[in-house]
Amino acid sequence: MKKKIGVVLSGCGVYDGSEIHEAVFTLLAIDNNGAEAVCMAPDLALDEVNHLTGEATGAKRNVLVESARIARGKIRNISEVTAGDLDAVIFPGGFGAAKNLCNFAVKGAEATVHPEVARLLREMAAVKKPIGAICIAPALIAATLGKEYRPKVTIGTDAGTAAAIQQTGSEHVQCPVTDFVVDRENKIVSTPAYMLAERISETAEGIEKTVKTVIGLI
Amino acid sequence: MKKKIGVVLSGCGVYDGSEIHEAVFTLLAIDNNGAEAVCMAPDLALDEVNHLTGEATGAKRNVLVESARIARGKIRNISEVTAGDLDAVIFPGGFGAAKNLCNFAVKGAEATVHPEVARLLREMAAVKKPIGAICIAPALIAATLGKEYRPKVTIGTDAGTAAAIQQTGSEHVQCPVTDFVVDRENKIVSTPAYMLAERISETAEGIEKTVKTVIGLI
Repeated sequence: MKKKIGVVLSGCGVYDGSEIHEAVFTLLAIDNNGAEAVCMAPDLALDEVNHLTGEATGAKRNVLVESARIARGKIRNISEVTAGDLDAVIFPGGFGAAKNLCNFAVKGAEATVHPEVARLLREMAAVKKPIGAICIAPALIAATLGKEYRPKVTIGTDAGTAAAIQQTGSEHVQCPVTDFVVDRENKIVSTPAYMLAERISETAEGIEKTVKTVIGLI
Repeated sequence: MKKKIGVVLSGCGVYDGSEIHEAVFTLLAIDNNGAEAVCMAPDLALDEVNHLTGEATGAKRNVLVESARIARGKIRNISEVTAGDLDAVIFPGGFGAAKNLCNFAVKGAEATVHPEVARLLREMAAVKKPIGAICIAPALIAATLGKEYRPKVTIGTDAGTAAAIQQTGSEHVQCPVTDFVVDRENKIVSTPAYMLAERISETAEGIEKTVKTVIGLI
């Protein structure tokens, strides 16, 4: 039986959903490590951003439907997934992690988290199943688990984001782009990816190491 | 000076645009081989497909705007790009390559090709700059260059698609998923990717080899 690794997507595109490269490298590393990806996303509306201009269009799209593009249609509604279905869970980055899965992008340390995302994260943490978080997604972990677990995470070096993470009760650790931070007590692994990366290969390298470490903690 | 490799996108999602995994592995392999990706796409409408249900929605999106999601906003209109700007060009697959860049999906060997895509392909072929084609994209190469150059390409093993490629004047060669076919005379390299792949790692392996070979032919 292959180990089942949840991959929580938040749309399809860095400015209004999951960062596509980060999500794809997560899926590849899961397969390369002999595990199976279980893609999922919440069923809710997102604010569409035109990725050519970088501007909000005012239109809505659906997070689950757009995430299905990255998953090639093989995706579940996160509301149907429990910690019992998974051996670990990984959150790629992209603004969707901070705007759709929670509202950290607007509220910082006071962020509220989508109820099904919060439920699954708390279930995983309660039974000490490993959690991976990429790019800005560690802020989501901090906003959800900060007070209770005081997790140690990285989003790279951005001082403002790091300060907001500290305010959740979590500990922020600086980290270079091709490396990762492990909180062994809470089994949480994080890497900066496009919070710092200037090349796609840097993102790929940090994510490969992170996914391998997450699977090794199972 | 890094070698410049054009990457022609056709939207964002396997059913109405570029296959996302194939496009991302193309971009990664270009960087890993010390070259620079120049992403581009035509500015035209596509027929949106809901990737959760697999059904056409009846709505339109724009190929260039959606392709910008894969390129993180760094993308050019193909009408502004000439062979003089590039050392090689690569076409990822996905239905967009056969529905947006040309109409091979509907017309087979009688397909017409988007005029700017056809122009760039003919310019590259005329000066023998290498061309890479992934998944179904070799059918686009065949439809554009078949009569004049009689290129040798692969889309894997699908008999119907292979027959339509033969009818363009091109030669179809069967090929396993993690391998590739090189037409040395025309400097055209192709690989089956998701025409055959059952695992994301198979797609990654075939594309890594294809991109490396394309760059080696410059």
